[in-house]
Amino acid sequence: MIIRNAWYVAAWADDIGKQPVARRICDEPVVLYRDAAGVAAALADYCCHRAAPLSCGRVVDAGLECGYHGMIYGTDGAAVHIPGQIHIPAKARVPSYPVVEQDGMLWIWMGDPAAADASTIFRYPIHNDETHWPHRHTLFPVQGGAMLMVDNLMDLTHLPYVHASTIGGNNARDHVEAIMNVEPTENGLKYTRWMLDHAPPPTYRKGAPHLAERVDRWQEFEFVAPGIVTQFTGAIDAGTGAYDLGKRDGGFSLRIIHALTPETETTCHYFWCGANGYRQDDPNATVELFGELTTAFQQDQVIVQQQQARLLEIGEDRLINIVADGARMHMRRVVERLEARERGEAVRAPSASERTPA
Amino acid sequence: MIIRNAWYVAAWADDIGKQPVARRICDEPVVLYRDAAGVAAALADYCCHRAAPLSCGRVVDAGLECGYHGMIYGTDGAAVHIPGQIHIPAKARVPSYPVVEQDGMLWIWMGDPAAADASTIFRYPIHNDETHWPHRHTLFPVQGGAMLMVDNLMDLTHLPYVHASTIGGNNARDHVEAIMNVEPTENGLKYTRWMLDHAPPPTYRKGAPHLAERVDRWQEFEFVAPGIVTQFTGAIDAGTGAYDLGKRDGGFSLRIIHALTPETETTCHYFWCGANGYRQDDPNATVELFGELTTAFQQDQVIVQQQQARLLEIGEDRLINIVADGARMHMRRVVERLEARERGEAVRAPSASERTPA
Amino acid sequence: MIIRNAWYVAAWADDIGKQPVARRICDEPVVLYRDAAGVAAALADYCCHRAAPLSCGRVVDAGLECGYHGMIYGTDGAAVHIPGQIHIPAKARVPSYPVVEQDGMLWIWMGDPAAADASTIFRYPIHNDETHWPHRHTLFPVQGGAMLMVDNLMDLTHLPYVHASTIGGNNARDHVEAIMNVEPTENGLKYTRWMLDHAPPPTYRKGAPHLAERVDRWQEFEFVAPGIVTQFTGAIDAGTGAYDLGKRDGGFSLRIIHALTPETETTCHYFWCGANGYRQDDPNATVELFGELTTAFQQDQVIVQQQQARLLEIGEDRLINIVADGARMHMRRVVERLEARERGEAVRAPSASERTPA
Repeated sequence: MIIRNAWYVAAWADDIGKQPVARRICDEPVVLYRDAAGVAAALADYCCHRAAPLSCGRVVDAGLECGYHGMIYGTDGAAVHIPGQIHIPAKARVPSYPVVEQDGMLWIWMGDPAAADASTIFRYPIHNDETHWPHRHTLFPVQGGAMLMVDNLMDLTHLPYVHASTIGGNNARDHVEAIMNVEPTENGLKYTRWMLDHAPPPTYRKGAPHLAERVDRWQEFEFVAPGIVTQFTGAIDAGTGAYDLGKRDGGFSLRIIHALTPETETTCHYFWCGANGYRQDDPNATVELFGELTTAFQQDQVIVQQQQARLLEIGEDRLINIVADGARMHMRRVVERLEARERGEAVRAPSASERTPA
Repeated sequence: MIIRNAWYVAAWADDIGKQPVARRICDEPVVLYRDAAGVAAALADYCCHRAAPLSCGRVVDAGLECGYHGMIYGTDGAAVHIPGQIHIPAKARVPSYPVVEQDGMLWIWMGDPAAADASTIFRYPIHNDETHWPHRHTLFPVQGGAMLMVDNLMDLTHLPYVHASTIGGNNARDHVEAIMNVEPTENGLKYTRWMLDHAPPPTYRKGAPHLAERVDRWQEFEFVAPGIVTQFTGAIDAGTGAYDLGKRDGGFSLRIIHALTPETETTCHYFWCGANGYRQDDPNATVELFGELTTAFQQDQVIVQQQQARLLEIGEDRLINIVADGARMHMRRVVERLEARERGEAVRAPSASERTPA
Repeated sequence: MIIRNAWYVAAWADDIGKQPVARRICDEPVVLYRDAAGVAAALADYCCHRAAPLSCGRVVDAGLECGYHGMIYGTDGAAVHIPGQIHIPAKARVPSYPVVEQDGMLWIWMGDPAAADASTIFRYPIHNDETHWPHRHTLFPVQGGAMLMVDNLMDLTHLPYVHASTIGGNNARDHVEAIMNVEPTENGLKYTRWMLDHAPPPTYRKGAPHLAERVDRWQEFEFVAPGIVTQFTGAIDAGTGAYDLGKRDGGFSLRIIHALTPETETTCHYFWCGANGYRQDDPNATVELFGELTTAFQQDQVIVQQQQARLLEIGEDRLINIVADGARMHMRRVVERLEARERGEAVRAPSASERTPA
């Protein structure tokens, strides 16, 4: 099922201007735009007159004008102008969705509007710190469900198989034997993974040529249900105190936000942004990092799309969980609680022992 | 629903020769062709032997020959030759559909053959008057239902929004405030629309550079249920007597027939032909007009296709009618009566007051 | 329905190496590959961990490795390695399908594995006799059911209509009046067809320019249910004893195996291989023959695909059988008996009279 009562990333803020953009979110057609004052808004993407998509229209001073017969809507979804008549009936409106612009993203709430609390939106100040974290973002359309992409990010043992040429490296045993620590949170989980005395993968080597032959490498991930995953990963010369003394400056590090927004049950919008934490004064470094991540995440896109196609055919019943699935299964339990709440079922807070990942 | 008991345009007469053409009409596969004598015919597009489409075959002297094993059919759908056997069983036949060639068009009847009365076919003598009305035609495949295209033609307030660059012009207020007169007919409606003291739109300006800065502009439309719309539109210098004295010669005018033939419930064949009434001795004028209309009607095609896609998703229930919908709603009521008749329901003739559009 | 308890050609043996190949067979996703020792194998094409297709993985020494998280499978479908854990649970497996490499083909059994008896696989020694029968093969994907392709091969009266330019020739009457002899077999049928004193078709003329103006032409076909058809066809100068004395050496002859493997109910894999029996020492002759057959069988592919599309729409009920359908109907009865057996119904052996084709 799709959880609707949640804040999702609808767009990168700088991708939405006055030209309306059609985007399917939570299996609803949505039009995203900015009004004449520059305020971002989201309406159901149809005109209540004859159903033409409002995304085929344009922004005028009075609001969003339908491209067929010229009805104009305000950001609350109510018609403000109907050509040829003075009276505007109360029914002349379309659904509008709460939108908040924050940290370079437009966040949308597709559920019960009364439950939309902007203070609960995930904060990502990295996007406001161009000096220390120069970054670059994009949006991948994925023919696979949002949860499959989150699965992917919860189990990094895929790195040597899917990403050997980029962020993975081909040392599968190091990945399996990584020191893995999972910590439940209020609305998701965090995990930290260390690979000590490890050969840096190609992307790290390219980004920070000064790295030694062997590094200590960390991956700190946080999942915030239902669709946000952040990561802080990096490496520094092995044995120089990163793991035990917390000395992580001067090596290679990056931060990424992954935002998975359901398009339909089985497809999603994959927003991601990569921030350069190692050569901040070199714009090329940020561009090169973006190129490396693009290659890597396209690798994920390919395998997840293939996986989705098979799952649609064979279902989940024939599948098994393995030891490496710990963080992933914990993530799924968190999501299942949200789903139960969405269906209106009583949800009992997990006890301390249940909050411990398997 | 699709109304089957009606004459539809199946093809432009000069588009059909001995090479069979496959065309889906009223959700049935049809093959259109001319037999050895040049007589146009339409059969269900499958061989009764092994179902190969007859449109993959060829016309031979004896009839339409299947391209798989050589069975030959007459224009009545009965097999006239079965390779390898003398006896032709009575079951060796496929449905045939009445076809009439008239006014440059092939008209087809997909309903009860006993009810097909050729005298009821819409007449369009313009097509036989190349001297006064040189013309040029085409066929657009539309991924939207035929009724949505008729809707489009019944409500010209879309012109300044969809066709600002061609036949509309960008003076929306003139369109809304046009003098509109709707007149019910036996099997449809006529409407006349006048815009007085109006700036001519780009297409008019290109076609008739001698037009003054301000013109009186008329649009006479007739809808003949379920799928024919004709239009006679034009303009002449403002205040020279077009509106009150009927003096319309010497300006800009054109005639168009729009024939909307259901392909499926939600797609249609859009046949249209534009006739030049202003520079009849200049073949370039007819070609240029055709180019302008092609651009304009592609604009309609785009918006109607987008509209159809949304309607399939959201249905009609959330939509409202507005004041500008008068002619369109009258048209829909005429069609609903035909639909009721098609379903075998008793249909009461509308009273005089009901025939008055809302 | 699809008959699963049968040996089908899954691939040409030389098309499958260590790079896994995805192929849908009997409506199941299958991965075909050779293990490190070169042994061909077939597994269900999904990983039992998270359903990623195994065809996206690679062959390693230990087996077929999933490209997502590195699970490795043996040719029996059991996991032999799960990264990060020692214990391999019994459920960690996917279905495997019996595969036999024989006569240059990989044969697969998609039904009950206990019933797979390799001794019943059709033998085709021609493929092992490059000296007398140099040959060349390919695979056509057909958007039409396997049975429609077998139908095609059981009724050669289609030759003058579908293949006039290649293996048919345009002498339809000769084809209809051919001497046709059908002989039931244990698991199918054989038929022999003679056209005496006949103009050789273009392909024959090109391959054997020394042929006389008139030839005696034979077509020996065998159908082995459910998906194999072989043919031995040729021609020699008319009246030189081919028909009555069995003197067939020195003219034009070829052998073809057609293997039709269900992909889905309504699509199939069409494997075919053409062997040159007339200019064995000239490699160009084999290549040219392959080119001619490619053209011819693409003609079949086109008409069968069109036929399938219509059958999906109109069904079989409106169709009739004709006299030329004798062999085809006998073939269908054989297949129907296999289908009944597959459904678990008691199947009575046909009596002698029933084995006589209609």
